[in-house]
Amino acid sequence: METAVKSEHSANIKRLQDWIANPTIAAEKLNVDKGAEYMRQMLLDAGFQQAKIVPTSGVPGVFATLDAGAPRTLGIYFMYDVKQFDPKEWSSPPLEGRIVDRPEGKAIMGRGAVNQKGPEMAFLAALRSFKQTGRKLPVNIVLVAEGEEEIASPNFNQVIASPDVRAAMSKAVGVFIPMAGQETNGATSIDLGAKGAIELQLISSSETWGRGPAKDIHSSMMAVVESPAWRLVKALDTLVADDGYTPAIDGWFENVTPLTARQKELIAEGIRNSNEAEIKQQLGVKHWIKDEGFLTSAIRLAQQPTVNIQGLVSGYTGPGGKTVLPGRAEAKIDLRLVPNMTKDEAVSKLKAHLAKRGFSDIVVNVSGGYGPTETDENSLLVRSQTAALKKAGVTYALSPRLAGSWPGVTFTGPPLKLPAVGFGLGTGGAAHAPNEWYLVESKNPKVAGFDEAAMFYVDYLYELAEAAGTAAR
Amino acid sequence: METAVKSEHSANIKRLQDWIANPTIAAEKLNVDKGAEYMRQMLLDAGFQQAKIVPTSGVPGVFATLDAGAPRTLGIYFMYDVKQFDPKEWSSPPLEGRIVDRPEGKAIMGRGAVNQKGPEMAFLAALRSFKQTGRKLPVNIVLVAEGEEEIASPNFNQVIASPDVRAAMSKAVGVFIPMAGQETNGATSIDLGAKGAIELQLISSSETWGRGPAKDIHSSMMAVVESPAWRLVKALDTLVADDGYTPAIDGWFENVTPLTARQKELIAEGIRNSNEAEIKQQLGVKHWIKDEGFLTSAIRLAQQPTVNIQGLVSGYTGPGGKTVLPGRAEAKIDLRLVPNMTKDEAVSKLKAHLAKRGFSDIVVNVSGGYGPTETDENSLLVRSQTAALKKAGVTYALSPRLAGSWPGVTFTGPPLKLPAVGFGLGTGGAAHAPNEWYLVESKNPKVAGFDEAAMFYVDYLYELAEAAGTAAR
Repeated sequence: METAVKSEHSANIKRLQDWIANPTIAAEKLNVDKGAEYMRQMLLDAGFQQAKIVPTSGVPGVFATLDAGAPRTLGIYFMYDVKQFDPKEWSSPPLEGRIVDRPEGKAIMGRGAVNQKGPEMAFLAALRSFKQTGRKLPVNIVLVAEGEEEIASPNFNQVIASPDVRAAMSKAVGVFIPMAGQETNGATSIDLGAKGAIELQLISSSETWGRGPAKDIHSSMMAVVESPAWRLVKALDTLVADDGYTPAIDGWFENVTPLTARQKELIAEGIRNSNEAEIKQQLGVKHWIKDEGFLTSAIRLAQQPTVNIQGLVSGYTGPGGKTVLPGRAEAKIDLRLVPNMTKDEAVSKLKAHLAKRGFSDIVVNVSGGYGPTETDENSLLVRSQTAALKKAGVTYALSPRLAGSWPGVTFTGPPLKLPAVGFGLGTGGAAHAPNEWYLVESKNPKVAGFDEAAMFYVDYLYELAEAAGTAAR
Repeated sequence: METAVKSEHSANIKRLQDWIANPTIAAEKLNVDKGAEYMRQMLLDAGFQQAKIVPTSGVPGVFATLDAGAPRTLGIYFMYDVKQFDPKEWSSPPLEGRIVDRPEGKAIMGRGAVNQKGPEMAFLAALRSFKQTGRKLPVNIVLVAEGEEEIASPNFNQVIASPDVRAAMSKAVGVFIPMAGQETNGATSIDLGAKGAIELQLISSSETWGRGPAKDIHSSMMAVVESPAWRLVKALDTLVADDGYTPAIDGWFENVTPLTARQKELIAEGIRNSNEAEIKQQLGVKHWIKDEGFLTSAIRLAQQPTVNIQGLVSGYTGPGGKTVLPGRAEAKIDLRLVPNMTKDEAVSKLKAHLAKRGFSDIVVNVSGGYGPTETDENSLLVRSQTAALKKAGVTYALSPRLAGSWPGVTFTGPPLKLPAVGFGLGTGGAAHAPNEWYLVESKNPKVAGFDEAAMFYVDYLYELAEAAGTAAR
């Protein structure tokens, strides 16, 4: 198997480069249908017996199965879309997938390299090695891929709601998304949970308000014409407390459950080997909120629901000023949710909060989102993963809750209620940023390159097949 | 004289087109030195005996004199800069100065057509007709031109502070800027005053705050990292009352003097022939503030100082959302001032207000501004103007205070303390907007085209020379 993976190294990297050259970007409706078909063909090519497009109201999903006649079935989640990019900010063309030298070794640089095409391609390389060597997989695979992860999965539940997808997925012991988050010392983590995320835009305009100007007018009219921009400021101001960070939306904390003692213990363990100064420096941050210490901040990072301003845009946005009274103002917001908040609850509460204060004219345009996700560390999925990591001699931490988000709740929530985590070896960086990279040939024996990441997935599939557990899960 | 103006019509329109083709835009530092030299040459060409560039810290001014050996001297203010423009929004290229058919007659369409190159060219055409016919002007002319009117004249006082400019200007009976604001019925107005204006940007960033991220970071960090965008919202919120329009900056109304009974009377007279419904429709506005009636709103328009948001810009501003926590947020603000507020007072009070509430890290970047201006309706300048309008059979209103602004205070304030107004015939529209136009051939005998506007300035110069008045002013 190892020989098979290694002999295919160049071909696999070429496949990854070709995929990077074909980006699907949901926010820009770029390469939507072609991207889904590309994904489908890659899955068939890697050994799936069937793969089909699953239409949604937005970008389509892809569903594929690989039946090995095994007793256990593993669920896999892929995202085939990538974040927007601006070529001007990159040191090599973002769609080229150029191989560059880094301190860590040879890396592929391109949009989607680590988030998530590289790790996903490593998983496909694992499957491909079975196909090449004519071996049977020790577990069956059911895979769902979506093309809207980067806009907060507005339609992914439609993929799961498709009867054949749901029936197939319900046989799985759990689901993971291939990840590559090894630190320099080789340590990795299994994220047992993640916050939910809702992306929305608050739009104040005369169109819905009935007051203020229909378009930008001369700013001298501010004396007698109301301003949608000031209205947005007044509405925004009510959403967080005067400290500038505590959510102040009515009833926001009603369903928030505190972290358990075990979760706090896991957080404390998790940061033991982290370098606070280095993290702050990478973020360009001098102080955590309230000047709290590292552990308190790490706990807050996991437990605090957030109301964030991603962007503000109104009227004149160029250099200096321009004497206009804008007809429209927009705040781009994301809400991060913790258990047991739900997307529907959060959106309703936000709308009710605005309405109660007379701001019901402000449009709440929800562009994507889902609730928080949690997986039991004692599930068969996680136990088999930690066993595989131990065998590979990889240090790992169990992270109870990512501050970031992924739509794991689509699996962990009803109706499937499956364990779902991110899992894998390898490393990379600059997700969502310029010069995104994924390590393909590692100089460091503790950190996996592409081939080692693929081989680890092979080993894991055997581990899962053999793991103790009477129930299928 | 009339023959001279008419015979030069095509040449004058060509001069106007050539000027429009050479825009100076202070905000973009476009065509700065060339624009000043262009202005200087045009003045010499029109008959000024001397014209020179006056350097400032920003875009240079131009100073010119035409000594006719007359007892009286008239001051003229020109602006040679224009507002920014986006060619995509225009129906013909904004620098072409294309002649287009409008209901009003033939008009020239281009950036600066009415604001202020067209009316200024009409005034130069008047001077040129004296030169052509070899006649002596009945008054001497001193002219100052600036190239930063559209960014609120941050350095215009430096032009006036130049000793020779100040000495020459102090001999003038008053100053006017050529205007073209005739309504369809031919009515025009003399603006006796205007609000002051300050343009500034409020910038919240970790650079000055010491908190929050140095650049945009992943939005999940909102749980533990403070947000410059939320900080800006909190600071902005304190600047106007909950009604969304009444300025709430500490001490803001301290030096505000109410309108006099005569000023209110003039406002009431001024709106008598205005069509409220038409004005609202043009503005795209359904309600005035507080749903006030036309007269109450017209009075408020003159008397209310304002704090306006011109623009908001922070983080991600493209379509949909992007999961960032921005490192910087900026509000573009203009303040309109009424007598007896001053620029220095307003800037100090804003800074003190922010500092008192703990926001002294928010940068107040003042990019331009000046105080309000007022001129006595009984001054020789205004009396000579109303006499000329009466002789020409033009209905006029005296407008006590424009809600918009021009740097008239540079003349009406110390040390010059001269009358200063806007004055002229003709019409145009869409200043600061796409498809700006200025009427060159009028179909309506009540509204002046280019030649009639120029001839009216000729008549006015004689009127001023002969107007009763013992003092030079």
